[in-house]
Amino acid sequence: MYRGRPWTVRQYAGFSTARESNAFYRKCLAEGMQGLSVAFDLPTHRGYDSDHPRARGDVGKAGVAVDSVEDMRALFEGIPLDRVSVSMTMNGAVLPVLAAFVVAAEEQGVPPGGLRGTIQNDILKEFMVRNTYIYPPAPSMGIVADVMAHVAGTMPGFNSISVSGYHLQEAGADPVLELAYALANGREYLEAALGRGLAIDDFAPRMSFFFGVGMDFYVEVAKLRAARLLWHGIVSAHGPKDPRSTALRTHCQTSGHSLAAQDPLNNVVRTTVEAMAAVFGGTQSLHTNAFDEALSLPTEESARVARNTQLILREETGVADVIDPWGGSYMMEALTRDVADRVRAILDDVRERGGMVRLVERGEPKALIERAAALKQARIDGGEDVVVGVNRYRSGAGTGGADVLDVDDEAVRREQSERLRALRGSRDAKAVARALGRLTERARTGEGNALGLAVEAMRARATVGEVSEALERVWGRHRAQSPPVSGIYGAAYNKGMDWRRLQGEVRAFEERTGRRPRMLVAKMGQDGHDRGARVVATAFSDAGFDVDLSPLFSTPGEVAKQALENDVHVVGVSSQAGGHRHLVAELLDRLRETGAAGRVAVVLGGIVPEKDKAFLAERGVRAFFDPGAPVPEAVARVLEVLSGPPGPAPGRGA
Amino acid sequence: MYRGRPWTVRQYAGFSTARESNAFYRKCLAEGMQGLSVAFDLPTHRGYDSDHPRARGDVGKAGVAVDSVEDMRALFEGIPLDRVSVSMTMNGAVLPVLAAFVVAAEEQGVPPGGLRGTIQNDILKEFMVRNTYIYPPAPSMGIVADVMAHVAGTMPGFNSISVSGYHLQEAGADPVLELAYALANGREYLEAALGRGLAIDDFAPRMSFFFGVGMDFYVEVAKLRAARLLWHGIVSAHGPKDPRSTALRTHCQTSGHSLAAQDPLNNVVRTTVEAMAAVFGGTQSLHTNAFDEALSLPTEESARVARNTQLILREETGVADVIDPWGGSYMMEALTRDVADRVRAILDDVRERGGMVRLVERGEPKALIERAAALKQARIDGGEDVVVGVNRYRSGAGTGGADVLDVDDEAVRREQSERLRALRGSRDAKAVARALGRLTERARTGEGNALGLAVEAMRARATVGEVSEALERVWGRHRAQSPPVSGIYGAAYNKGMDWRRLQGEVRAFEERTGRRPRMLVAKMGQDGHDRGARVVATAFSDAGFDVDLSPLFSTPGEVAKQALENDVHVVGVSSQAGGHRHLVAELLDRLRETGAAGRVAVVLGGIVPEKDKAFLAERGVRAFFDPGAPVPEAVARVLEVLSGPPGPAPGRGA
Repeated sequence: MYRGRPWTVRQYAGFSTARESNAFYRKCLAEGMQGLSVAFDLPTHRGYDSDHPRARGDVGKAGVAVDSVEDMRALFEGIPLDRVSVSMTMNGAVLPVLAAFVVAAEEQGVPPGGLRGTIQNDILKEFMVRNTYIYPPAPSMGIVADVMAHVAGTMPGFNSISVSGYHLQEAGADPVLELAYALANGREYLEAALGRGLAIDDFAPRMSFFFGVGMDFYVEVAKLRAARLLWHGIVSAHGPKDPRSTALRTHCQTSGHSLAAQDPLNNVVRTTVEAMAAVFGGTQSLHTNAFDEALSLPTEESARVARNTQLILREETGVADVIDPWGGSYMMEALTRDVADRVRAILDDVRERGGMVRLVERGEPKALIERAAALKQARIDGGEDVVVGVNRYRSGAGTGGADVLDVDDEAVRREQSERLRALRGSRDAKAVARALGRLTERARTGEGNALGLAVEAMRARATVGEVSEALERVWGRHRAQSPPVSGIYGAAYNKGMDWRRLQGEVRAFEERTGRRPRMLVAKMGQDGHDRGARVVATAFSDAGFDVDLSPLFSTPGEVAKQALENDVHVVGVSSQAGGHRHLVAELLDRLRETGAAGRVAVVLGGIVPEKDKAFLAERGVRAFFDPGAPVPEAVARVLEVLSGPPGPAPGRGA
Repeated sequence: MYRGRPWTVRQYAGFSTARESNAFYRKCLAEGMQGLSVAFDLPTHRGYDSDHPRARGDVGKAGVAVDSVEDMRALFEGIPLDRVSVSMTMNGAVLPVLAAFVVAAEEQGVPPGGLRGTIQNDILKEFMVRNTYIYPPAPSMGIVADVMAHVAGTMPGFNSISVSGYHLQEAGADPVLELAYALANGREYLEAALGRGLAIDDFAPRMSFFFGVGMDFYVEVAKLRAARLLWHGIVSAHGPKDPRSTALRTHCQTSGHSLAAQDPLNNVVRTTVEAMAAVFGGTQSLHTNAFDEALSLPTEESARVARNTQLILREETGVADVIDPWGGSYMMEALTRDVADRVRAILDDVRERGGMVRLVERGEPKALIERAAALKQARIDGGEDVVVGVNRYRSGAGTGGADVLDVDDEAVRREQSERLRALRGSRDAKAVARALGRLTERARTGEGNALGLAVEAMRARATVGEVSEALERVWGRHRAQSPPVSGIYGAAYNKGMDWRRLQGEVRAFEERTGRRPRMLVAKMGQDGHDRGARVVATAFSDAGFDVDLSPLFSTPGEVAKQALENDVHVVGVSSQAGGHRHLVAELLDRLRETGAAGRVAVVLGGIVPEKDKAFLAERGVRAFFDPGAPVPEAVARVLEVLSGPPGPAPGRGA
């Protein structure tokens, strides 16, 4: 494809209010970005309006807050939706969000048939890794099929699904496992659509993929080459006539997990290498990460450098002048064959054991990916896998210096709540109730297309939260139960700091205090990125801690309660999406209210800007761990906290 | 080679005094650098001691000042020269500098036989592009052969020559021309050594190459693959028995010219892409540029990111796990064949027309390279070749923000002068005079090995300047005469700002003032990097200016004199090596002394840190141009300066 047209420069972005994100998009489009890719905030993903109590802390943080058609209109004001293609990472709340997009476009004068872009709509991987599901697996699969059918009928230029391997890789899957599960999920969706009676050529050309591209350079190129080969085979089994049905089209994103908080400019190098692998693999569209994403949301400068990475590759290097440049390379052809063979074996195994929905319900893929993540962390902590600036060639320069973008989530929440109040005051309440009633009815009976009904509801000015709630009434909210894997980390980690010495220190703590150190690993708010939390849980457990894992999406009050009930020594909060400022401060307040603040230490790991660290240290957080912090050092540090005097870290005011 | 051993991370560095550079080297070695690559300052290159009047402004600026064995000892203090390999970019003053290295190592306890490393010793390309020659071509070739012979006899672990294509590419040669001339020069040296009666297997294994790697990704990989093929053929013609004789070993450096002053972090991307091409091409050793090198000398941070670029490629990507990964690729094999064919044609042509020494004496290669540089600049200025952030996707973020390393050349000069005084006071003056006399005798008679004699002189504590001068007495200093090419830029530039409109403005100036605007393009101090100056000269001339070009290595007084004699309107100083602070200030003083300061405007282009711009703007410099500034904009700006009121730029104090 590259001889005729290079890939699309499409940067995933969004934060704060629709108005602010709109200004950012327009600037990026003027500076060379070609397609939009909207990041929604976590309450939107999870189907909560911004004024919902559970939204608190996350509003506008890791993406833009969208509650209604009005927000969607503000998001795309002045952006011609018949010419700029829009990708939306939305799965859980796919119905109200895609519906709001359709209505906003209509009101901009662009009918559904004129829209170009992609909706992610890949719910299976949410149950496997990303956790922004709302309903249980079975009805969720029904929504996917409804979206595919509605889009096939009314939006011929729009991709109705983007099957993501990216999030699997980010959660720990190696490239082979990533490709295998993505293709298995894709096969599942394809069959679900066929089950609805759609003809293969009516929707297969609108299925797309989304892969992560990590640092294993040759394997990543081979993965993308193998992906085309294998998807062609999967679709061909259903007798398509249209050659576009069997062509795999993909967006790629460089790996967020490969970025380090230490020496952030190293990440420009990593992202460049990964972007080259994506281009060599022939991606149709690409997102390159900003160098400061292990620290915070991208700033204007870091977002520009990320975008320029693509522009430089496209304009200055000639790499896109050749189709499949690695074609014929002895090494690459052999590697591609090898990747394809291994993926085929997994695909066959999935089929034999009943398909992905069944396996996902059993939690098997999640456990396998988690196992890979724990092994990877053990290899890094042990120094077998080198990460420059992290476990070797440390500069001591730290993470400082970089500017970070700060979103005041309380201000966004206030502004959104105000807009919601105005909306609810001005709309036709009966029409809204009728439209929502029809959605509840759809959930009950399975009759009608849920996306079509959601479009009517959003046009009547229902909110994202209301549409979600209308369906939740019947289907309920899914709560995942999956104990972390165990024994993996400890068995794999056998280098670096002496693991047995560390286990000895844990035992010494037990002898001194009468019981093993007990830690509650907690995820709060709507942040479902639990790779870090689960790796930490399994590794601390292997070190000899008693470890509890909070349910996902807990409130600070719920975590405080669980900490007291389990009588833990320490709560380890994991925050990947920026909600910590409010949520952790509130957790400390709740503990303090019960008088447990002196007894239960709180530590915080994840993506936490320096400014927030200072703020939370003052309030009593005892230690902070950056992404990629070696687990043995974290264990040692937590033991140190538990053995020191209670209260905040020395040198900080209480 | 990569399966067994990855490439050597070898960063070119050096600045200020030997003591300060030593501290920097030790830190770099501790943080992952593997081989040293010493950058000497320009007075050292040109055989001047730091206290020589012509050294002023350049001492310690673009490299480290080394005047004697004492400085060389300080440079490598605490660095075990039997284990760390040292590359030295030295051509003009190769005799005293290599001699000082040998003596310093001996006094550290490492005999010549234990030394590992490389001396550049590639004088032909100095006459073609880099201009740090001292003597005329014929005696200079004799020095090259003496070095090869002496090293072959006494330093079996040391590379006696590093034939550079890098500087040819930096000056404007495309990859094919770069490779062709480098191989032609290599063939010339090889034949010179054979002419001294050396056996091919005694020195061919110690010949090495040095290539630049620019942004034309596939062509750069193909160039390195073709280089091995072709060099094998050239050496094989002389019947070697040792297989190491025909193996091409090379160091590579990413392209300095490809870096932009605008949006400097973009350069991290460029350097990563280039480094990957070098690794795919199988380089044995690599230097990666720092992102701020278009602005100034690298800082500690930028130097670390540059080094980490290599460490990340080596440790995190797996790219070095495969020998010749592109082998078999249909595209790459075809491209390699094509590059090899085109290079072979040039090599044959050089041979037929009498060899490189003859062509260099006629100035043909220099003119061809300059022509390519003017064409390239015209393509960029016209927007045909895109440079992100420069001629497209400009961010308006400018060049600010980056810290720059500042060397106080006057302080270094004082310190070095003090050391020289102490040295001259403590040594055996008669022994020094005897040793220098023998060198003069060698120049007169051609008897004996000049490097062997230089070792004796340096051991007796002669200085770099004295050894150079002892030979200069017989051979004289070479002064190059080569008028700039003309007509190239104007013919190629036909886009962007209207060239004819600009020519019209130049004519309007002529009509208004009675004569064409006249500019003296000046290079001052020991900075021989004249690509920028010559491209500007030819392009301004094509725009309708009368252009004079100062001789290289002029003093500020000489430039002021030439400006007055030619009655120019403006002096355009080009500075690539950091000497501008002193040199331009002195030029302004000289002009002021003659009362011409109001009549003759001074503008400055090249690598000039913001701080220096402010300093020089206050003293009267009227405009500044960053590397890569579009020529049409520069022409327009100069016309504006000439049409405005005399004196410093508005808004700046005089």
